[in-house]
Amino acid sequence: MANPWQESFDHAVTVARKAGAVIRDALQNEVKIMTKSSSVDLVTKTDQRVENIIISSIKEKFPTHSFIGEESVAAGLPCILTDDPTWIIDPVDGTTNFVHGFPFVAVSIGFSVNKKLEFGVVYSCIEDKMYTGRKGRGAFCDGEKLQVSDVTEIKKSMIISELGSNRNPEVVSKIFSTMQKVLCIPIHGLRGSGTAATNMCLVASGAVEAFFEIGIHCWDVAAGAVIVTEAGGVLMDVDGGPFDLMSRRMMSANNQTIADRLVKEIDVFPAERDDVVKPKK
Amino acid sequence: MANPWQESFDHAVTVARKAGAVIRDALQNEVKIMTKSSSVDLVTKTDQRVENIIISSIKEKFPTHSFIGEESVAAGLPCILTDDPTWIIDPVDGTTNFVHGFPFVAVSIGFSVNKKLEFGVVYSCIEDKMYTGRKGRGAFCDGEKLQVSDVTEIKKSMIISELGSNRNPEVVSKIFSTMQKVLCIPIHGLRGSGTAATNMCLVASGAVEAFFEIGIHCWDVAAGAVIVTEAGGVLMDVDGGPFDLMSRRMMSANNQTIADRLVKEIDVFPAERDDVVKPKK
Repeated sequence: MANPWQESFDHAVTVARKAGAVIRDALQNEVKIMTKSSSVDLVTKTDQRVENIIISSIKEKFPTHSFIGEESVAAGLPCILTDDPTWIIDPVDGTTNFVHGFPFVAVSIGFSVNKKLEFGVVYSCIEDKMYTGRKGRGAFCDGEKLQVSDVTEIKKSMIISELGSNRNPEVVSKIFSTMQKVLCIPIHGLRGSGTAATNMCLVASGAVEAFFEIGIHCWDVAAGAVIVTEAGGVLMDVDGGPFDLMSRRMMSANNQTIADRLVKEIDVFPAERDDVVKPKK
Repeated sequence: MANPWQESFDHAVTVARKAGAVIRDALQNEVKIMTKSSSVDLVTKTDQRVENIIISSIKEKFPTHSFIGEESVAAGLPCILTDDPTWIIDPVDGTTNFVHGFPFVAVSIGFSVNKKLEFGVVYSCIEDKMYTGRKGRGAFCDGEKLQVSDVTEIKKSMIISELGSNRNPEVVSKIFSTMQKVLCIPIHGLRGSGTAATNMCLVASGAVEAFFEIGIHCWDVAAGAVIVTEAGGVLMDVDGGPFDLMSRRMMSANNQTIADRLVKEIDVFPAERDDVVKPKK
């Protein structure tokens, strides 16, 4: 059977590459010549501009589809997953990296139908790497098939997590306490690239065994979720329950053994769901 | 005046590139096809092989020069800096990354005369980026001049540090406590690439404001030290004193203001100097 979403997938790859070129251009021609304080404004401008490019291009081709985009939600649009074909977009994943020119910045585009993810595209635009995953059809990086690592012993694993942007002392303490417990299992090492989308691609490609974080948003991980599972990995909640795209909690791992071992060490803290309906102000 | 070490510098670049190709080849053809447990042995084998390639090639051209190499020291050779022209070599910086295929692995070659660093070459071999620095002649990445970031406000900074490989609970607690204090100054973010040499190049290129670590070795930072200072940055001890290549303590930053602010937050723990003379067994 022909894949009904082939055209959408092809368009996602094209528009992600186009968006990545805009980000690279902003980095090379604008971030480098400005002071860091003004580059914080630039990131918002670039975020909005890139999201507009992506959404307007998709709307033109697929006028009936729905959207959840980081900037659209920030501007007040709802963040509710429906049965519609829905594009879930982070135009610039790794905004702090972007501000500093740290070499991991990604365009992340996930696509769901009937609330199930059909495909995901992550374009790591400074490295110029295109990661894709399609339900039932595998995950790839620039044409090369991705396969998660075969490590099952936690002591031979390398793990990614992130400190995130929350500076609430209680949250920061829980994050550090979790990281310390994980490191002292012991494992080989802990890394952080500064972008959830890239982190998930590193799980998919076997460079690390797992990535977990509390506080991510659906647009950070929708695309990566397909890429990880299609590379043979698993997704779950940080408390061991089933993965929920809207919960802002993510454990992605090469296999269930590693995921189960890690959730034992995680000090969970509350994060408001993405799909909470807020009363209009 | 012609630079008396021009020929040595040119040779360092050539041999670093050659060594990097051997590492890339080992990654692509050996790490990928083996289990992680056997790749721990592979890293030692590759480390030794690459150090031999580098040292034998230099010895042939400069038979009177001295060497301090990670693997030679591990094999029992002394780690004492003399006035001789001395090559300070880390054949594979980022060995844990190497084992996992995490994309930061570097060849690091520093060169000192009269105990002063003359030049440094860091080849980030998966990214294929060649960083160089020569005393009084600037620092470059693939021909492009490097310049540290102009940020002076710590709250606008991004910092790199590493958790390291020491799993002594007291050391790990001090490392995490330092990281938590630094994050909560607050700063924009904390990153770690898993290689000291690459971290210093990220300081030199302005992607982060500072990198600090206790427990590094002279071969991890000799090359990066020249690259950072020639890009306009500063080096010091983690307690605010002068930088000492053999002390296993490193604070490298874009400027003195950022460095001074960070040393206030560092919980120092002891690390035996590289140049301690051990009684023969």
